[in-house]
Amino acid sequence: MRKRWRRKKGPGSSPGTLVYMGERTGKEIRLSVIDYDDSRLTERDDIPLDHIGALKETATVSWINVEGISDPKVIEELGKRFGLHPLLLEDTLNPRQRPKVESYDTYLFLVLKMLYLEKDEIRSEQVSMVLGPHYVISFIEDPGDIFDPVRDRIRAQRGRIRQMGADYLLYALVDAIVDHYFIVIESVEERIERLEDEVFTRPTPATLQAIQSLKTELLYLRKSVWPLREALSVLLREEGPLITEHTEFFFRDVYDHTIQVIDTLESLRDTVSGLLDIYLSSLSHRLNEVMKVLTIIATIFIPLTFLVGVYGMNFDYMPELRMHWAYPAVWMVMLIIAGLMLLFFRRRGWL
Amino acid sequence: MRKRWRRKKGPGSSPGTLVYMGERTGKEIRLSVIDYDDSRLTERDDIPLDHIGALKETATVSWINVEGISDPKVIEELGKRFGLHPLLLEDTLNPRQRPKVESYDTYLFLVLKMLYLEKDEIRSEQVSMVLGPHYVISFIEDPGDIFDPVRDRIRAQRGRIRQMGADYLLYALVDAIVDHYFIVIESVEERIERLEDEVFTRPTPATLQAIQSLKTELLYLRKSVWPLREALSVLLREEGPLITEHTEFFFRDVYDHTIQVIDTLESLRDTVSGLLDIYLSSLSHRLNEVMKVLTIIATIFIPLTFLVGVYGMNFDYMPELRMHWAYPAVWMVMLIIAGLMLLFFRRRGWL
Amino acid sequence: MRKRWRRKKGPGSSPGTLVYMGERTGKEIRLSVIDYDDSRLTERDDIPLDHIGALKETATVSWINVEGISDPKVIEELGKRFGLHPLLLEDTLNPRQRPKVESYDTYLFLVLKMLYLEKDEIRSEQVSMVLGPHYVISFIEDPGDIFDPVRDRIRAQRGRIRQMGADYLLYALVDAIVDHYFIVIESVEERIERLEDEVFTRPTPATLQAIQSLKTELLYLRKSVWPLREALSVLLREEGPLITEHTEFFFRDVYDHTIQVIDTLESLRDTVSGLLDIYLSSLSHRLNEVMKVLTIIATIFIPLTFLVGVYGMNFDYMPELRMHWAYPAVWMVMLIIAGLMLLFFRRRGWL
Amino acid sequence: MRKRWRRKKGPGSSPGTLVYMGERTGKEIRLSVIDYDDSRLTERDDIPLDHIGALKETATVSWINVEGISDPKVIEELGKRFGLHPLLLEDTLNPRQRPKVESYDTYLFLVLKMLYLEKDEIRSEQVSMVLGPHYVISFIEDPGDIFDPVRDRIRAQRGRIRQMGADYLLYALVDAIVDHYFIVIESVEERIERLEDEVFTRPTPATLQAIQSLKTELLYLRKSVWPLREALSVLLREEGPLITEHTEFFFRDVYDHTIQVIDTLESLRDTVSGLLDIYLSSLSHRLNEVMKVLTIIATIFIPLTFLVGVYGMNFDYMPELRMHWAYPAVWMVMLIIAGLMLLFFRRRGWL
Amino acid sequence: MRKRWRRKKGPGSSPGTLVYMGERTGKEIRLSVIDYDDSRLTERDDIPLDHIGALKETATVSWINVEGISDPKVIEELGKRFGLHPLLLEDTLNPRQRPKVESYDTYLFLVLKMLYLEKDEIRSEQVSMVLGPHYVISFIEDPGDIFDPVRDRIRAQRGRIRQMGADYLLYALVDAIVDHYFIVIESVEERIERLEDEVFTRPTPATLQAIQSLKTELLYLRKSVWPLREALSVLLREEGPLITEHTEFFFRDVYDHTIQVIDTLESLRDTVSGLLDIYLSSLSHRLNEVMKVLTIIATIFIPLTFLVGVYGMNFDYMPELRMHWAYPAVWMVMLIIAGLMLLFFRRRGWL
Repeated sequence: MRKRWRRKKGPGSSPGTLVYMGERTGKEIRLSVIDYDDSRLTERDDIPLDHIGALKETATVSWINVEGISDPKVIEELGKRFGLHPLLLEDTLNPRQRPKVESYDTYLFLVLKMLYLEKDEIRSEQVSMVLGPHYVISFIEDPGDIFDPVRDRIRAQRGRIRQMGADYLLYALVDAIVDHYFIVIESVEERIERLEDEVFTRPTPATLQAIQSLKTELLYLRKSVWPLREALSVLLREEGPLITEHTEFFFRDVYDHTIQVIDTLESLRDTVSGLLDIYLSSLSHRLNEVMKVLTIIATIFIPLTFLVGVYGMNFDYMPELRMHWAYPAVWMVMLIIAGLMLLFFRRRGWL
Repeated sequence: MRKRWRRKKGPGSSPGTLVYMGERTGKEIRLSVIDYDDSRLTERDDIPLDHIGALKETATVSWINVEGISDPKVIEELGKRFGLHPLLLEDTLNPRQRPKVESYDTYLFLVLKMLYLEKDEIRSEQVSMVLGPHYVISFIEDPGDIFDPVRDRIRAQRGRIRQMGADYLLYALVDAIVDHYFIVIESVEERIERLEDEVFTRPTPATLQAIQSLKTELLYLRKSVWPLREALSVLLREEGPLITEHTEFFFRDVYDHTIQVIDTLESLRDTVSGLLDIYLSSLSHRLNEVMKVLTIIATIFIPLTFLVGVYGMNFDYMPELRMHWAYPAVWMVMLIIAGLMLLFFRRRGWL
Repeated sequence: MRKRWRRKKGPGSSPGTLVYMGERTGKEIRLSVIDYDDSRLTERDDIPLDHIGALKETATVSWINVEGISDPKVIEELGKRFGLHPLLLEDTLNPRQRPKVESYDTYLFLVLKMLYLEKDEIRSEQVSMVLGPHYVISFIEDPGDIFDPVRDRIRAQRGRIRQMGADYLLYALVDAIVDHYFIVIESVEERIERLEDEVFTRPTPATLQAIQSLKTELLYLRKSVWPLREALSVLLREEGPLITEHTEFFFRDVYDHTIQVIDTLESLRDTVSGLLDIYLSSLSHRLNEVMKVLTIIATIFIPLTFLVGVYGMNFDYMPELRMHWAYPAVWMVMLIIAGLMLLFFRRRGWL
Repeated sequence: MRKRWRRKKGPGSSPGTLVYMGERTGKEIRLSVIDYDDSRLTERDDIPLDHIGALKETATVSWINVEGISDPKVIEELGKRFGLHPLLLEDTLNPRQRPKVESYDTYLFLVLKMLYLEKDEIRSEQVSMVLGPHYVISFIEDPGDIFDPVRDRIRAQRGRIRQMGADYLLYALVDAIVDHYFIVIESVEERIERLEDEVFTRPTPATLQAIQSLKTELLYLRKSVWPLREALSVLLREEGPLITEHTEFFFRDVYDHTIQVIDTLESLRDTVSGLLDIYLSSLSHRLNEVMKVLTIIATIFIPLTFLVGVYGMNFDYMPELRMHWAYPAVWMVMLIIAGLMLLFFRRRGWL
Repeated sequence: MRKRWRRKKGPGSSPGTLVYMGERTGKEIRLSVIDYDDSRLTERDDIPLDHIGALKETATVSWINVEGISDPKVIEELGKRFGLHPLLLEDTLNPRQRPKVESYDTYLFLVLKMLYLEKDEIRSEQVSMVLGPHYVISFIEDPGDIFDPVRDRIRAQRGRIRQMGADYLLYALVDAIVDHYFIVIESVEERIERLEDEVFTRPTPATLQAIQSLKTELLYLRKSVWPLREALSVLLREEGPLITEHTEFFFRDVYDHTIQVIDTLESLRDTVSGLLDIYLSSLSHRLNEVMKVLTIIATIFIPLTFLVGVYGMNFDYMPELRMHWAYPAVWMVMLIIAGLMLLFFRRRGWL
């Protein structure tokens, strides 16, 4: 999941020049607009850029969703029509932004990380959103189906979304994203449980590698959620007309969710660290077991082997060798020695 | 004790829709009301929802206790009659809230975790409470008997509770909950003492597992108490008519108790971490003991075995073999070697 | 030194009810009063409660010392006469308070931990003190002789104590307590030095246990001193007539002392953690030593034993056996092998 | 990369005396000036000091770049002409400054660390910059080619640089430096990946040394970037005419980049710590493998060797020796023992 | 370097009583005065106490240096003449003060730790300084030659010191002390480098002891520098006529130096912690090496010894014994076994 730095722009290149810095250059850009108020709803999928600018002025709430952001020209054009700052546009094209909220004169800019599962692996997608008085613009490389429930709610007039302004729409989108964090965490929890089993029953270096990669993933999650929390708290303290007091309550709720996510992540990190301790002590324990077996066998047989060696000597004058009962006596002595050894091991708790 | 995330609501579902998200769906909802002032006391157990709304206006203190919160409709109805925010109601239905205090226009909202022991295991229950000018509403899935002493004090006019307002009632309930934390901590302390014994005398992988699960439980306790402390400190800084200056002293006292709980938890965490260190060093120590035994036995007998091997050789010309005193001489030599070895071990402190 | 929680009051019992929660119920309560100004000094040991109330009004400085606090009735009576808050009185009876300063309308309340040595063990005693305009009330279960030097200074008019007000008396008492911390720390330092010796020369599991219990004690000391520091910093920021600017300098001095104590405690904790590291690496080192001995002995004699075994075989056709010089030749070979082995070990630095 | 302290000035020498404290005393000082506004551009490479002072007053933006700072006299002269504080000048000559921003009456002073790769090794260079109303002075020992892109942009009128003031020039320089951090981090990431491979497949003490030196380098990077972040946040809070609100947006962008760098550094530190854990557990694992082999071999053959020893004894009366089938029977017994042993090892999971 | 607590004053003794609490009671007190302004300079070495008081009023800058502070009477007398607070005087006599800045009505009080090397060992000396409008009083047990450069600068009129006030003198003294920290750190760095070598090539328990004592020393340095940094930041925020704005720049410079010292100390602590890790893993590595040797030898020879044991048995009917080629065949088999073993070890990477 860790990605290495990759620069498309050379270092020192002019800032504010729009260059796409992600990895999915193949994807075509796609603009879709949902324009609604309490009573009306228009959905347009392939709206020309010229018409989009007009949405800025209407009193209805307009949600402009930009998918596949690899074409800087469209972004630049859009930015001009909505009067967006060049650096903001640059940020939308660089999928390595930290989650943040930036407040401009007439609009708010929000960057966050969408997390979702794809074949049991955690994928991360950057979402940038602009909140204006009556519009929300969302930029995303590949939205998957995370925004579908919001779209459905708008269409079906479920909940209060159609009665509320653009700030509530922004909230709904952020909420949809944060809700997905819980799913991702659930899958991580399942993997931790499986590792817990493994580490106690059959720890191998592969287990260690799995623990390490879990740690890295948790770190990555943390890096996505912590700045989001900060960003949301900035948003909550934000004064101004863009976010109504009513919607603030809802953002407070999302904020609480991110704290919940962080709390859970911290617990999981602790658990994973614990796994490492268990792994190491499990190795020690196994070494102890191995050594006990060796010691028991060696300690019993080495003295006995010495004894039989004694009577294998070829001295001419060894009176014992001539005695009739000597052989069974030696066996007897050896059995006693072995018995005493076993007793000693039992007393030590090795058997 | 760690519970996995479980979502009843799909991600992205409309916020503010009341859906019960706990696990005890079987339980029926039960409203009970205690309405009192200095001189009068009415207790009603099955009051119709229509009558409850009237309690909001009376000058007497009304404690409305809602048990078994699995029916969102009743909660919603209650919320409407007392003018509670939809998100607040949603929080009462989600038993994974973080302890918090939220201040609304005419009421305070408080979420905290009740902890109690059930057959030596720590159970956790979420309690949500709303403090209005003359009423307290408490939501709880399964209150057990934690609130009984408060109820008894109201009934028996013990202490000052009947002379005081709704804020003091809220305090009494919070105090009852925090008092139970001490009982839970006591039981954890007992388990730690038992583990301390075990880790010194007979450490096994099971001991390690017990240490790890203790750590997890302490983490969980911490996660319950820390935000409570924050919440109470918010409450103390809270200005407004809901909490009188007089009652504030009492909340300061509860606040002190939570700090005491946190202090103790931190010590216990330290102790448990220490147990892990002892466990690991105990493994090392045991390995040392095993190796010492092996080394002593092997080091004494391996040279002797070599010696007897020498005189077990079948060379035709080995003058020693023919000498009469050779056999006892060899024994003598071997005893001297063994004695020197033992001396060496004693000097090393291995015996 | 760690004490388990013990509740005398049931959970949920009415707050503000005075119940003694310590362990020395046998002790009788004892009030002693020292009343002084620049010129006069009265000492009374068994003053009736009725007369004590009058001391509140006099312009002389009155020090009311309450020893053996197990009788809640006397405390309650005293509280009434001096107008003390019920929760404050409850705190004096619960010997598990955290050090703190609470400021009330006309008096300050201070709780701190007195530490002293009894037969080389650290004992802890809770001291509660109330500072009024012209009086100091101190509550303590068993004061020992810590306050004696202050008493002597008052009697002998040593220093400036007789010229100053009740705030200076409070300072003198706090200073006497904090001074004793240094003695306790000194004894801990001595024990650490002894352990340092032990851990290098002959580490045993008992050493580990001693290290662990030292850690616990340092933790306990820390828990006593940190909140005291906070409390004193509250006191220093405290505005109001109770503490004069002049005395503030002296409190600043005590505050500096507590910081010194904390600094030393932190160093000691670090040293004790270091001891644990040394203990563990000492175990590893010893294991290495044991293994080296085993390996040297085994590696020299196992090949030799094999060799003598070869010539102990009973094959009919083994030409070497018949050769006259074969036996001394085998000895020669064996000596060379052993010599080479020893050389190899020396080169590895094992000898 | 860690450099030891080296003082050129004796301790206690007069502060404000300009002494070069770097290591490249051989380099000659070189002043180059770029003076531009929207329409004009002058570049001068060997401008006499007397003429440089005049640049302070012109309305065009002047970038005075001082390379090879080993000659204190030139610096001092320059300082006088631009009215720079002596301590500031002293800082430019000491290549061990911490990154910082200092605000003087009419100019800002900025110190930061330039990092670049030279033959795969991280090199660090200190850059000091002074921002005045219409000029930027940059001091650097050996700038390499990091500032070239900025120079090119000015020359080619690319981007908005020619339309903006000296503050934007400062931003462009800082941005060029911070951009290079990403390149350095990339190379560190590559080395970590190589080490990850090594630590799992063939850990040697050299691996450990490599891990340690990586840790040291990350620490050094951290020490360079953290104070830069602080410094930039000071710059952003800085009020005054030197930095226009417009340029502040750009500095906010650089600030975001430094946070990104810090985030990545923290992850890398975590990864490197993880490598150490893996290294240690890898050692343990290998020891286990070694011991298993020894134990299997010894445990199988030691009892068998005892058995053959028994029948190598020379007692006169050992009936087994005379039996015809005894020899194959002994072989059979030995095979069975060995088989049982192997079964036992398989059951333990050692094979 | 760690010193144990030593109290000269009994606990509870009257505060403000001047008692010398250091260890060099033998030293005689020595007052020396340098009195200067731009044009004049007087140096007096044995000035009577009566005349010193007069220096307080003169407009020239007076530096009163008090060496060998073991005589409380002189200190007390001096204190009276300059109107110094008794607690301040007490602090000068107690060489265990934490570095701090205290601001009194008409003077500032500063305590810091002078560090210097004496025969490669770090020595620490407490310096207390009082800054009044036109005077600096410095108290020190044994100043060594650290202040000599300052004295020389005053005498030789080097730098600006003669043109500036008492605040600049204070700065010059503090700067001289902080400059010496760098020398001490350099020597620590050298010792760390030597230990780094040792820990890789020949780690012994003595190495561990050296690492531990380095850790303790770094801790001590940290304890000296951290509070100094705090104290200087207090000084910088200090408003009032004692420190002019001009001198504040210089103090800011010293402050930067202390931060540099702290940064370096933190790196060194990290390095020393790393040494401990290396030490421990080095022990593990050595154990592995020892075990490999043992295992290789034992694994090759134990099976062979068994084999030769087989043909040492004395059964009457062992057909192999009679065969002519059996003996060389056994040798062949044994060589093959040994060869296979060696191959196996090579494949495992043990050879």
